[in-house]
Order: sequence, then C-alpha cells, then structure tokens
Amino acid sequence: MTTESRRGARRSRATTLTDVARLAGVSVATASKALNGRDQVKAETRVRVVEAAERLSFSPNALARGLLQGRSGTVGLITSDLDGRFSIPVLMGAEDAFGTGSVSVFLCDARGDAIRERHHVNALLSQRVDGLIVVGYQTDPRPSLGPDLPVPVVYAYAPSESPDDVSITADNVEAGAMAVEHLLSCGRRRIAHISGDPTYTAAQDRSRGALRALDDAGLSMVGDQTYFGAWTEAWGRAAARLVHRQHPDLDAIFCGSDQIARGVLDTLGELGRDVPRDVSVIGFDNWEAIATGARPALTSIDMNLETIGERAAKRLFRAIDGDAPSGVESVSCRLVTRESTLTLD
Amino acid sequence: MTTESRRGARRSRATTLTDVARLAGVSVATASKALNGRDQVKAETRVRVVEAAERLSFSPNALARGLLQGRSGTVGLITSDLDGRFSIPVLMGAEDAFGTGSVSVFLCDARGDAIRERHHVNALLSQRVDGLIVVGYQTDPRPSLGPDLPVPVVYAYAPSESPDDVSITADNVEAGAMAVEHLLSCGRRRIAHISGDPTYTAAQDRSRGALRALDDAGLSMVGDQTYFGAWTEAWGRAAARLVHRQHPDLDAIFCGSDQIARGVLDTLGELGRDVPRDVSVIGFDNWEAIATGARPALTSIDMNLETIGERAAKRLFRAIDGDAPSGVESVSCRLVTRESTLTLD
Repeated sequence: MTTESRRGARRSRATTLTDVARLAGVSVATASKALNGRDQVKAETRVRVVEAAERLSFSPNALARGLLQGRSGTVGLITSDLDGRFSIPVLMGAEDAFGTGSVSVFLCDARGDAIRERHHVNALLSQRVDGLIVVGYQTDPRPSLGPDLPVPVVYAYAPSESPDDVSITADNVEAGAMAVEHLLSCGRRRIAHISGDPTYTAAQDRSRGALRALDDAGLSMVGDQTYFGAWTEAWGRAAARLVHRQHPDLDAIFCGSDQIARGVLDTLGELGRDVPRDVSVIGFDNWEAIATGARPALTSIDMNLETIGERAAKRLFRAIDGDAPSGVESVSCRLVTRESTLTLD
Repeated sequence: MTTESRRGARRSRATTLTDVARLAGVSVATASKALNGRDQVKAETRVRVVEAAERLSFSPNALARGLLQGRSGTVGLITSDLDGRFSIPVLMGAEDAFGTGSVSVFLCDARGDAIRERHHVNALLSQRVDGLIVVGYQTDPRPSLGPDLPVPVVYAYAPSESPDDVSITADNVEAGAMAVEHLLSCGRRRIAHISGDPTYTAAQDRSRGALRALDDAGLSMVGDQTYFGAWTEAWGRAAARLVHRQHPDLDAIFCGSDQIARGVLDTLGELGRDVPRDVSVIGFDNWEAIATGARPALTSIDMNLETIGERAAKRLFRAIDGDAPSGVESVSCRLVTRESTLTLD
C-alpha cells in the first residue's frame, strides 16, 4: 500500500465540509465561514450550517480546523533535557493551559546541539506549528533563535539572551530566600549552604537569595560562604563532612539540589546527628523519587515547572494573536514540607 | 501580523522548485522527478536540473521534500511516561536510527489517558506524520490502536495486545537470568530476590528468569520466593530487613529496580554488612543518577531503551515501505558492572 493510497483512505472516513455545505444548501466557503464564527454570514445561514454539521456528526479533523482558521492547532516544544525531568512538566503545563482537545504539543529533543536544534525547528515549521516553546535544562540565558522565525517563540526555564524575546523562568533568587526563611521559621540560626556547580546561574541565584534572607535576619552563613561543588550525592556527602568538622554547631543545611541533600543526609546519619532534631535539611527541585525516598523524607523547593509551561503557553497564545510583550517573566517557586525540617517546639 | 502573512513571509525567503525548473528550462513536474531520483527523467535533463538547483542553492524545506516524496519526514511518538525516563531514550534511539537531518520525531504525552492518546494520534495524523511509535512505561501488553490507521504503528517497550501489530520490547526473563548469572559468577550461592509490584509483567518476568538461572545451577532462591512489594526505596529497606532476619546467611540480593536496591543498601549498611564483601547487590534499570549516587555504586541491568527505539524506527521504516512482519521482538538487556558486585577472590 503506498503512502498516497493510505492518505486517501484516511480522507474517505470522515464526513467532509463539502457534505455539510451540500446538506445546508450553501457553498463550501460559506459553510466554512459559518462554522468558523466569522460575521459575514447571516444568522439564519449559520443556524442551517450548524444544524447540518450536527446531523452529519461533522467534526473537522485538526488539519481541517487549522485550514478553516489558518492555524494547525499544534505547538512545537524544543528541549535539550536528556532525561525529560524538566521538559515533561513544562509540556504538561503548556497542554493544560492550551486545553486538551484543542492544541497538541510536539516535543523534539535537540540534545544541546545547535545543528540538531535548527533541524527540529525547520521540521516543526514545515509541519506548520503555530508557535514554538524552547525549554532549557538550566536557567543560564541561551542564544535566541532570532527574530526572523515565521511563528512566535517563547523561551521557558532558560531565558533568551535577547531582550526582544519572550522568556519565562524560575525565580531562583526568591527560592533561595524562601528556603532560608523556612529554616528560620523552624527556629534555625546556624545555617550552612551546600550547592552545585558554581558556573550555573541557578546556583549563584539561590545562593544570593539565601544570603539576602540571612542578612535580613541579622545572620550570616555558616562558614561565611556557599560550599559550591557538583550536583551530586557524592559532593553532598563530602561537603557535609567538611562543613560539620569546621562548624559542628550548625543546625540546618540548605542544599542546592535534592541529590546533594541525599548525600548530606547520609553523612549526618553517619555522624550520629538526628535529622531534623539536631539538623534540619532542605533540598531543591522536589524530585519526587529522590525526595520521598529519602529518610527522613526531604523538604524541598519545587520550581513549579508546570506553571512555567502554562505561562509560556499563554504568552504564546498572546503572541499568536499579535500581542507579545517581550522580556523575562519570573515564576515563583514553592516550598514542599516533609519530615527533614520540622518546627522546633 | 496575521498567521497568513507570517506564512507568506516564510514562503518568500527560499528559492522554490519553480525557480529551479525555470532556470533548467523544464517543467516543475520534471524538476521534481529529477531531484527526487525517479528514473523517468533523461540523464542529461537530471544533470541540468541538479546544476540549476545547486546554482540557486535550492534546498527544499522538509514540507517540500515531503511533497516531492509523498512523505513528511516526521514520525510521532506517543508516550504515557510522565517523567520521560523511558520515552526519551527510545526517542533518541529512534532518531539515531532514522538519521538526524532526515526525520524528526515528535513526542506527545498521553498521560495514560485513552482520550488524550486518541487526540494526540489525530493531531499527529493531521500533521501527516509518516508513522507512529507508541511507547509504554511498563512491559504489560497494551490495547492496540487498531488496524485502521492510515500510517504504520510500532509499539515500543509495552507490546500491543494484538498479534497483528509490530512490537519491540525488553527481554525481562533473560535479564533476570543475566542478573543471577552475574551473581553466581561472583561466587554467590545464597541469592535473594526483592522486587516491585507483582501485578507488573516485568516483575514476574524478571523473577521467572532469576528462578530459571538458579535452577540451572542447582540452587533455589533464598526464602523460596520472590519478595514482591513496591518499586520504592522504602520497600527495599523493609524487605531487606525481613529477609536478612530470616536468612542472615544470604550473600547476594537481586533487586527488581535501582530504587529498591538503594533501600537494600541502606539496610545492609545499618546491619553492619559490607557490600560487596558480605553481600553483593544488583539493581535494575541502570538509572544513572540513582545507580552512580549509591554507595557503593550500584551494578545494574540496563534495558537498552535506545536499542528498542532504534529497532522500532527500523521496523517503522520497513512498514512504511510496505514490509512489516507482525509480532513481538525482544531486545536483550545488558549488565553494567559497578562496585556493589565484585568477584570474590
């Protein structure tokens, strides 16, 4: 069976707009306008067409709807997030905002490779997507796809370097402050901060927020520094041992990721320190499998990636309608409390 | 700017096939045939068209190429894998098999919801994908999309319930045997098996394979059963405590997932048992972050999801060309050795 005959088979299965037009006694163009809600059609004609469509159970497929409305009802999502941990929640948030049954989001993985990214952008444009969402796996600004694309683009999580683009990102500064404020509200005063790779904007932002919150409370960080290293359990284990040796009186550790926090919990357990009684521990990312598997279960900061996806989708809608204010919008993170931080009584 | 004018802008940027035909002095149809490699075109005509295309830097966009060849150069991948852990590797394997620059794979997330899945299938068909890959997050057979789709479908990881469909899945029976054989080769004889939810086909298959390998060696499982429970660290911790109390002479534990294995490692550490000297531990999934973060780093079974994606892509290619043997093909898993199992000397 050839591709052509398969396509023919597909077309033959559904009632067409032509059938509707014939039954309503109008031209196909008029039927299209009527179903599309344009106001050049008389009310009584519209009623006739809609009734005919209902009698024939006419449900235009997405392509037909797209042709009627000049849109395909699809959005492309380009990511370089190799394990999908960041991009799948953004995709789900975007779909929820668009509304299921009206828009489909197609994800393509560029694997951090500019040539592969360009290829996917071209493929998506060839398929006539109505817009693009570009998702990064870190919050460092990324190169713009440029101003010349034929459809609007919104950058999610990783903002675009260009101020002319529309970007939605997570507010990691506020999140760092949020983590420290939670520890303060638990009665903690000797707070250390162990984080990941310092070349990540996210690591620097969380550290800045934590410093600000401590400063506002008249406190300083234990060790007068953020212990930057790597986004791994191994670094969490090693750094916790180091900080604890230098500052055995610490009563809380804010960790830059849940993986780091898992390592910190291991070391505190080995040192005989009870969590949360002796030391409260808070992670970052709210990576479900990692945070709930921890003992005790890990309090964490959730970056609300679904919300970032929703906001990106809404901005894209506005841009498709020609109303696209540029610049970077930050989405607040949220605290998810579990047993590793408990208020002291 | 309206969608229409944007589309117009896109079309106006590139050289068209009409320009090439004009320069070569042939019809558009002939230019198309010549560039498409069909043999109804005289060799000298083909040379003239190809030279004209080169002079004009004519690179047909994917849609144009698709129209030339009757294909869109895109494949849809439908998944219900909420964290992307299974589907992203399959997607990457499929893209590698298709070859970057020739086919783009579009992923849609159905979230385990049949209505959402149907919507995505329709959206992908409307965008004229050349085929579909349907990826499950477990190996239990899933309902077929049916025989009436206008493009070929290959089921990956979760096979279709219909023997008329083409499915590629992981050989979990063989993998269970592989895990036990590795432990045997490390000199272990008192092997327990702690696994996840027994309603998963994968859990039953791994258990069957493990039993077979033990049987072949004239051994039985410690406790004469697989300790089924949940796919969590908490179950791994609890089950290890239970098994160890009943059978303190065990010398190895095969775990049905890396998360279970992490819990098992925690408990063995608390019980003062050295891994791997006293007890060897092997996980399943080779979930990088979980396996390498463990202490000691975890030996695991990798399901070769990229290979499953590659095979699925190749089958899809054959099906597009009309050559599609139906049935289930199993892909072998592979052992990834780390410190948690070391050969005894």
